[in-house]
Amino acid sequence: MEKRTDFFNLGTDELNDLYQELQEKYNEYKNQILKLDMSRGKPCPEQLELSMEMLDILNSDEQLKAMDGTDCRNYGGVDGISEAKELFSQMLGVSTKEIILGGNSSLNMMYDTLSRAMLLGVSEGELPWGKLPKVKFLCPSPGYDRHFAICELLHIEMITIDMNQDGPDMDTVELLISEDDSIKGIWCAPKYSNPDGITYSDEIVDRLACMKTKARDFRIFWDDAYTVHHLSDKPDQLKNILTACKTAGNPNRVYMFSSTSKITFPGSGIAMLASSEDNVNFIKKQFGIQTIGPDKINQLRHARFLQSLDNLNVHMKKQAAIIRPKFDLVLHHLEADLGGKNIAVWNKPNGGYFISLNTLDGCAKEVVSMAAKIGVTLTNAGATYPYGKDPRNRNIRIAPTFPSIHELKLAIEVLCVCVQLVSIKKILAGRI
Amino acid sequence: MEKRTDFFNLGTDELNDLYQELQEKYNEYKNQILKLDMSRGKPCPEQLELSMEMLDILNSDEQLKAMDGTDCRNYGGVDGISEAKELFSQMLGVSTKEIILGGNSSLNMMYDTLSRAMLLGVSEGELPWGKLPKVKFLCPSPGYDRHFAICELLHIEMITIDMNQDGPDMDTVELLISEDDSIKGIWCAPKYSNPDGITYSDEIVDRLACMKTKARDFRIFWDDAYTVHHLSDKPDQLKNILTACKTAGNPNRVYMFSSTSKITFPGSGIAMLASSEDNVNFIKKQFGIQTIGPDKINQLRHARFLQSLDNLNVHMKKQAAIIRPKFDLVLHHLEADLGGKNIAVWNKPNGGYFISLNTLDGCAKEVVSMAAKIGVTLTNAGATYPYGKDPRNRNIRIAPTFPSIHELKLAIEVLCVCVQLVSIKKILAGRI
Repeated sequence: MEKRTDFFNLGTDELNDLYQELQEKYNEYKNQILKLDMSRGKPCPEQLELSMEMLDILNSDEQLKAMDGTDCRNYGGVDGISEAKELFSQMLGVSTKEIILGGNSSLNMMYDTLSRAMLLGVSEGELPWGKLPKVKFLCPSPGYDRHFAICELLHIEMITIDMNQDGPDMDTVELLISEDDSIKGIWCAPKYSNPDGITYSDEIVDRLACMKTKARDFRIFWDDAYTVHHLSDKPDQLKNILTACKTAGNPNRVYMFSSTSKITFPGSGIAMLASSEDNVNFIKKQFGIQTIGPDKINQLRHARFLQSLDNLNVHMKKQAAIIRPKFDLVLHHLEADLGGKNIAVWNKPNGGYFISLNTLDGCAKEVVSMAAKIGVTLTNAGATYPYGKDPRNRNIRIAPTFPSIHELKLAIEVLCVCVQLVSIKKILAGRI
Repeated sequence: MEKRTDFFNLGTDELNDLYQELQEKYNEYKNQILKLDMSRGKPCPEQLELSMEMLDILNSDEQLKAMDGTDCRNYGGVDGISEAKELFSQMLGVSTKEIILGGNSSLNMMYDTLSRAMLLGVSEGELPWGKLPKVKFLCPSPGYDRHFAICELLHIEMITIDMNQDGPDMDTVELLISEDDSIKGIWCAPKYSNPDGITYSDEIVDRLACMKTKARDFRIFWDDAYTVHHLSDKPDQLKNILTACKTAGNPNRVYMFSSTSKITFPGSGIAMLASSEDNVNFIKKQFGIQTIGPDKINQLRHARFLQSLDNLNVHMKKQAAIIRPKFDLVLHHLEADLGGKNIAVWNKPNGGYFISLNTLDGCAKEVVSMAAKIGVTLTNAGATYPYGKDPRNRNIRIAPTFPSIHELKLAIEVLCVCVQLVSIKKILAGRI
């Protein structure tokens, strides 16, 4: 059989034969008793080794004083030490007055920001969202399952918005937010998006910054998790949303989030929130009550290890050198096994942590379940959509970074066999 | 003049002469241009030095693996690594299934627990407190200002409860909570309490555990901040509240909080929450959504440095050796300058971080303000009461740990002069 034949052009007998052949392959894998995991965007051990020297930077001979003399061991300071704010504000393209450093989890900062919006409102004089009969969020999808889980936990109604190749479907976004003042926010993963690997175009950023929202206190939750996480030598460029919002006369519209989770250590990094000075000052007042402040020793460790934005970028090139071959491997196998068959499409991301695979409509759940049955774990089908419901049941998120090359090769082979099996079944069912 | 004479027994002329004399002393201090701070319970640099070796424990040659094989550098785990849970559950007298380790701030865990209660309720099927027209908390006072600040931020109405020498006035507590189901909680600082240094008696603990509350979802917020922070060789013993609650048939009534903030580094310690398994499991489900989990590397660092409860207690004896002389100095001066004069009373705590001084009614604000005018900063008068309002305007919190012995001596001398000046004015005013 021609390798790259459109499955829809194959006769029923041909498809049946192919099914048989693939089923045999599937059974062979089954006999190998695999235990492979492509489900979460976790750095692999080799990536973590790159930051081990950070552990040597502070020791008992050191003064644990920040640039401005702050004793990092003691209480004090709710928004972070100067040198760390300096570095990370450069990374995000904001001023040091527009950033707050948090604990080790940007997800937690997002949850916390949203829960404060629910309990206290987002600015002086605005009603807490929790006092309203209904709060809705726009969720460009496929998107990050953990954003959606936060909304679900807080009983915020989610509205699925299609993702295009340049970002969310803005026509729909603009229409909805101009009419419904219970829509209070939108989740965005604007750079090397989870899972599509898409970077929003300048036009999309500008439309988000400029659009007229019926809710005065509408907020963009801008999760810029992969801002320095390039895989290509020609990295994507993301327009600065905070600047765009200021230019548009909506300076308080956006909360930017990021972290060093995939720069240094995922469990022990630095999370950050950037926004207008007004928003930052409003939040700092609340922060001063809700916490004694973030771990300043870990901030000092990070500032001294990463040193400068240039040095941070050099560090990220080392990260890329480790994970790029894994992305290449996955893309190579997808092309070799599924290319030209008209049963799946996928993106080739220039950065980030995921490859997003779309099967024929109605096939994703079965593919994931077939792979799971023989020991290959993928992110649950549907997880990339609000309420875990992919309306077309076609999106599968592939996370290639954690497994070894050897494991990854096996896992992707299994995935491709499953996609083909389920696709053939679906095509044949359509012919009855 | 007899040193220890009751001021109320002195004649008006004698008091006027004394006032003159003290005013001259006050002016002398004024000319010294002091800058002394007894306002916050901060460890002093010598205390922080005791934990510096903790920074050497993990370095680039180490495997950052927890006992159970967890790679502490990576994602995973919401409730803490085994060895740290083991150690701190022993410290709090609970099982490892009854503890959750958090970030670096127990205050933040308290805020977070309360904000989740407001948004989501405290157990399956209970209404979120934020959905009720009113939520009230009982606040034994004097108490910890930051507990009260959290309530104020979240618009929880605070009811002041008197503190006796063995804990809160339980007759009033029991009466109120049996009648009013909008009373959802009580703040307790049960051991070496902030600021009184009181430890709740067994009877008080039992009454808290057994009392009938009108609200089914009533919770005790048990801030056991100073559980191992003894100053005396005969430390106070606090009855285990979780055990008491279980025995009383109210296993889910209490959230215990503690941290290593004043064991290792205040800015970079480990916070913890302990409660019944039911409560812990309920919270862990939400934790799994709101965060990627706490900093496991810092937990590993703490577990390896502190090693065991015995070793932790040895470490705490070194802390005590540094700060006990400071407490002794303050107590000595209070006795020498204010003793027998019938114008002030204070506690002699066996542990903790504070000495609580009660002046004559109506004097605290003026004393604190007079001291501030010549460069001696005390915690704001009133701060130890809900809404910053001490109904008798008499409580002053002294935090002796941070200043050096020399600074502390000066500061306490100034304080004693101010107390006497304001007291004389008050007594004389009463005679007109």
